[in-house]
Amino acid sequence: MTIPVIIDTDTAQDDCVTIIAGMMDPVAEVRAITMVAGNVGFDQQVRNAHLTLNALGMLGEVPIFLGCRRPVLVPWVSAENVHGDGSGGLRIDEQGLRTEDEHGVDALLRLTAEAPGEISIVAIGPLTNLAVAAIKDPTFPARVKRLVIMGGSNNGRGNITPAGEFNFYVDPHAARIVFEAGFDITLVPWAPLTLNDAVFKRDQLAEIASLGTPLSEFFGHVCASTLAFDESVGIPGTTHPDSLSLTVLLHPELVTRSARQHVAIECDSELTRGYSAISWGVHGLEPNAEVIEAVDGEAFYAYLKGILATRTEPNRPYLARG
Amino acid sequence: MTIPVIIDTDTAQDDCVTIIAGMMDPVAEVRAITMVAGNVGFDQQVRNAHLTLNALGMLGEVPIFLGCRRPVLVPWVSAENVHGDGSGGLRIDEQGLRTEDEHGVDALLRLTAEAPGEISIVAIGPLTNLAVAAIKDPTFPARVKRLVIMGGSNNGRGNITPAGEFNFYVDPHAARIVFEAGFDITLVPWAPLTLNDAVFKRDQLAEIASLGTPLSEFFGHVCASTLAFDESVGIPGTTHPDSLSLTVLLHPELVTRSARQHVAIECDSELTRGYSAISWGVHGLEPNAEVIEAVDGEAFYAYLKGILATRTEPNRPYLARG
Amino acid sequence: MTIPVIIDTDTAQDDCVTIIAGMMDPVAEVRAITMVAGNVGFDQQVRNAHLTLNALGMLGEVPIFLGCRRPVLVPWVSAENVHGDGSGGLRIDEQGLRTEDEHGVDALLRLTAEAPGEISIVAIGPLTNLAVAAIKDPTFPARVKRLVIMGGSNNGRGNITPAGEFNFYVDPHAARIVFEAGFDITLVPWAPLTLNDAVFKRDQLAEIASLGTPLSEFFGHVCASTLAFDESVGIPGTTHPDSLSLTVLLHPELVTRSARQHVAIECDSELTRGYSAISWGVHGLEPNAEVIEAVDGEAFYAYLKGILATRTEPNRPYLARG
Amino acid sequence: MTIPVIIDTDTAQDDCVTIIAGMMDPVAEVRAITMVAGNVGFDQQVRNAHLTLNALGMLGEVPIFLGCRRPVLVPWVSAENVHGDGSGGLRIDEQGLRTEDEHGVDALLRLTAEAPGEISIVAIGPLTNLAVAAIKDPTFPARVKRLVIMGGSNNGRGNITPAGEFNFYVDPHAARIVFEAGFDITLVPWAPLTLNDAVFKRDQLAEIASLGTPLSEFFGHVCASTLAFDESVGIPGTTHPDSLSLTVLLHPELVTRSARQHVAIECDSELTRGYSAISWGVHGLEPNAEVIEAVDGEAFYAYLKGILATRTEPNRPYLARG
Repeated sequence: MTIPVIIDTDTAQDDCVTIIAGMMDPVAEVRAITMVAGNVGFDQQVRNAHLTLNALGMLGEVPIFLGCRRPVLVPWVSAENVHGDGSGGLRIDEQGLRTEDEHGVDALLRLTAEAPGEISIVAIGPLTNLAVAAIKDPTFPARVKRLVIMGGSNNGRGNITPAGEFNFYVDPHAARIVFEAGFDITLVPWAPLTLNDAVFKRDQLAEIASLGTPLSEFFGHVCASTLAFDESVGIPGTTHPDSLSLTVLLHPELVTRSARQHVAIECDSELTRGYSAISWGVHGLEPNAEVIEAVDGEAFYAYLKGILATRTEPNRPYLARG
Repeated sequence: MTIPVIIDTDTAQDDCVTIIAGMMDPVAEVRAITMVAGNVGFDQQVRNAHLTLNALGMLGEVPIFLGCRRPVLVPWVSAENVHGDGSGGLRIDEQGLRTEDEHGVDALLRLTAEAPGEISIVAIGPLTNLAVAAIKDPTFPARVKRLVIMGGSNNGRGNITPAGEFNFYVDPHAARIVFEAGFDITLVPWAPLTLNDAVFKRDQLAEIASLGTPLSEFFGHVCASTLAFDESVGIPGTTHPDSLSLTVLLHPELVTRSARQHVAIECDSELTRGYSAISWGVHGLEPNAEVIEAVDGEAFYAYLKGILATRTEPNRPYLARG
Repeated sequence: MTIPVIIDTDTAQDDCVTIIAGMMDPVAEVRAITMVAGNVGFDQQVRNAHLTLNALGMLGEVPIFLGCRRPVLVPWVSAENVHGDGSGGLRIDEQGLRTEDEHGVDALLRLTAEAPGEISIVAIGPLTNLAVAAIKDPTFPARVKRLVIMGGSNNGRGNITPAGEFNFYVDPHAARIVFEAGFDITLVPWAPLTLNDAVFKRDQLAEIASLGTPLSEFFGHVCASTLAFDESVGIPGTTHPDSLSLTVLLHPELVTRSARQHVAIECDSELTRGYSAISWGVHGLEPNAEVIEAVDGEAFYAYLKGILATRTEPNRPYLARG
Repeated sequence: MTIPVIIDTDTAQDDCVTIIAGMMDPVAEVRAITMVAGNVGFDQQVRNAHLTLNALGMLGEVPIFLGCRRPVLVPWVSAENVHGDGSGGLRIDEQGLRTEDEHGVDALLRLTAEAPGEISIVAIGPLTNLAVAAIKDPTFPARVKRLVIMGGSNNGRGNITPAGEFNFYVDPHAARIVFEAGFDITLVPWAPLTLNDAVFKRDQLAEIASLGTPLSEFFGHVCASTLAFDESVGIPGTTHPDSLSLTVLLHPELVTRSARQHVAIECDSELTRGYSAISWGVHGLEPNAEVIEAVDGEAFYAYLKGILATRTEPNRPYLARG
């Protein structure tokens, strides 16, 4: 039994790793990649998705739908200071690469209408596509099997601001819309979960590099910029919240602690914009999400390393970098 | 030379009058009616649109597209206390009445893509459809010829709250999105414009009733509830901001005073939710709308009366009211 | 029977005129002047108050208490672009000029405690002093006879921003505190009241100048900067909302229209900061203020002109201006 | 060398313990107790302070000044569901008990003006008194030696709401005013610090009870209600953030980890009202507080137990409880 999944992504760095895991893990059946404005320029994100499929030798094997190029209400802000271009400057000949004509939002609506209750979504960028889909069609949330969201924090530690994690900060209105829309939500917070259980340290990165596969090499490229940034702010390695989100869906046995909680997103004040107010249970609020609190980090690392060890045949050679 | 126009509407009371004027005025070419959550229940709004086309004898002559059934972020609130069901309890046999399969948002995007720069939109409900269209496709605003919006006030007098006019209050986020999206906007405010120049008083209503046409009779039905409400709050007649908006587009010579101003919509505070902050020109803000300040109210009344005087043949007989 | 009054002021331009009227009108008994951060630098405001008393020949005849030098929460902003120094560059020898040691807030509390229910307050600057007094002592509002406030608008027309009138914008939190504290409030809005009924046009200003008294000459100095500013923004003369506020207290027969309404002040959003949301009566909100809508502008002008015609003996000569 | 200190308190439960420690520790010289609206009814708080001094046999030995009976802007909310009356129903004959006539705010201003730079303040309730003092006199913050504040959280865990800790939630505007006013601030957060290092568990409470002194007995009374509440929400004992705050001032050697950070308080949105946005250092914000992250909890417990072991002579006998 495979798990049908759509990856909603602002493809850069760990988004690439997520696509790799989704395409390689036999448990997953990736029905679509939908692109949303987030980490880096929209066209670069599309390029990163193609580069990832190329590394897998799977160019053309999964449809890429272009979704919303801007947040619901506030102007787009990027994380290029963290991720660079999101794929370490890699380039291939883009001749003939294509994306679907259908809008990402409509693809989400159509695919879930064709298979109501069957498809899960792993949303690893700002939640604009999902919010717009829910506004267009209020019956959409009920058609989604599970929605795994990477975003927010449950220890009050933002990254882009003291209170705001990037995905929720970039489109706080979308995040609120989604958390109020009636999805069956699993939340994978940035902190402390990612910092505790999904940081790959220098020695682990060396292990991955030593695999010597096209995927491990590609991994090194896409993570280089983030590694430098993370170490500059005291995080001892690369962060993998996106691929962790997919892993939580595919391999729930890796989750070691979680709780059903009420999650509300701040979008009315700039100071705490995007803050995920997570009730720890004594405030009489109805839970609307399963919040992942801890995973088996070693097993998660082993899982990803195993995938990166697979020898693939890239579709196209990388071009020399300018 | 006709003016191609889409009417984006939460059809009830003066929305019906607007559709009548659009369909009857030879200057207008109504390409589509798009429905948005607003005045009354969504399905009742669709019924009201059908009832209006029926009164015209034009059932089926213009496509009706169903758009967003909820505001962008806040829960829907209705104006049923003002408008009742929006058509005075009229009913027809609904057998065979149909609406389009395409979503209203997508119709807006497609029609304007098929005729870029040619079609104007008269938006006389909450701005949800337009906002979602602009989020889905940031190139949409540039494809719309003119966008005439009914909403807000430029004398600080709301209707649903002290600061908030209904259309902007119901979906303040949509309104902000639209005013920031780059449309060529003409704003028809509720106050003081509508109260000064688009209230039909008892004697005028009697004149219209005495026309004795199917349309004048229909007009009496759709306006009855609003008349009672208006008089209860000190407005001496029925209000016609929606049909005025279309008229401003079709017959700009009726405008006697307008100004290019900067309009910003409040969506961060409940107290002033939906407030339209209109700069009167000394604050150094770039104008983003033409604000209509006064029209020739007599000419506007004469124009509508002339249309209502036309003798039409309703498609279907009205059913006895329960 | 005289009317005991405290003038709470950010003394510049029309604040000076207010002090003149209060000290000259036999109906008024000015018990104190309390100073609050507002129009111009705090020390300059004190200087302006002294200059005003000097023009009257009344230096030392009313105590000046220094109140809050900053708004409750937001940083102080000035209106020096409008008012210059607030007294047209006049200077006197300041040797021996004094203010009270007691804080303005404490003076408000003490004086009203010594004569509960007897003293009215005319508040013609930001409401910081009154708010702090109400926080310190919740029984204070009940001890004040009438509180006449100059601030806000009831036609949605701000001055410092599209939505914000200066006094309420500068300290919106204070304004909200005061309107919720239980005072018997009379509100004198900036627009449209002041613009309709309290603008002195060029010909009136010439009449005043031709009086040839020390007070008319002083009036010319304090109004010069404001006149230039007003004309630059399309206001055809000098504005007198502050002296109008005192006049409304002393001579209520000049009021030609007013209404008891609910007034709420925006302090949660920057866009509409300081906006006075005034209900026009159909929203089910309990009135908390008498809002002055119109006065006999000719009578108001005649009243002030009569006062300025009085020949006074300034205490000290004006120094040559640098 | 003693440490002169003012305790600004909403006296209930651990506030009582704080007064006990302050009065008993020879290192401290408590110059004043100032009362602020917070935990329980204002008059009950005063009663609790008297009860505490009575238990110490020190009635009349430290002046009690009554401060602000309401928050700056929002209505007061209590924590009576947590603390009951704050002293376990104890009563004494109140004949002759007195408080000072001077307002708490004025006492803070005067005492620090008499000894500029010498007196520290331990603020263990909402920050209304300190905020109002800073508004009245902007030179006040510079006269305070150190300001130790109990409030907020640095792990995103509120108590009264998911995001809000009680003291900051009750008067968020005061908290923002204080953090922006220029004090030398030390912050003692509720979580995780208090939960990690300042919870006295059942066995410790039994040890304290077994001391058999008037103070240990009094301690048992004032903590009973809080203990029941805490255990009902999964906190395994009584919480002592207030007495920890004083201890941090008197015995800084107990602090095992702290960091200079930027702290900003949310007061513009209800969802995250009172949230303390604490930057962990990578956001380029200037630190404005020393945030205590960990203390030697065993030493803290031993310290308080030592004080409670002292045998005192209550001034007055306790009355039988109704």
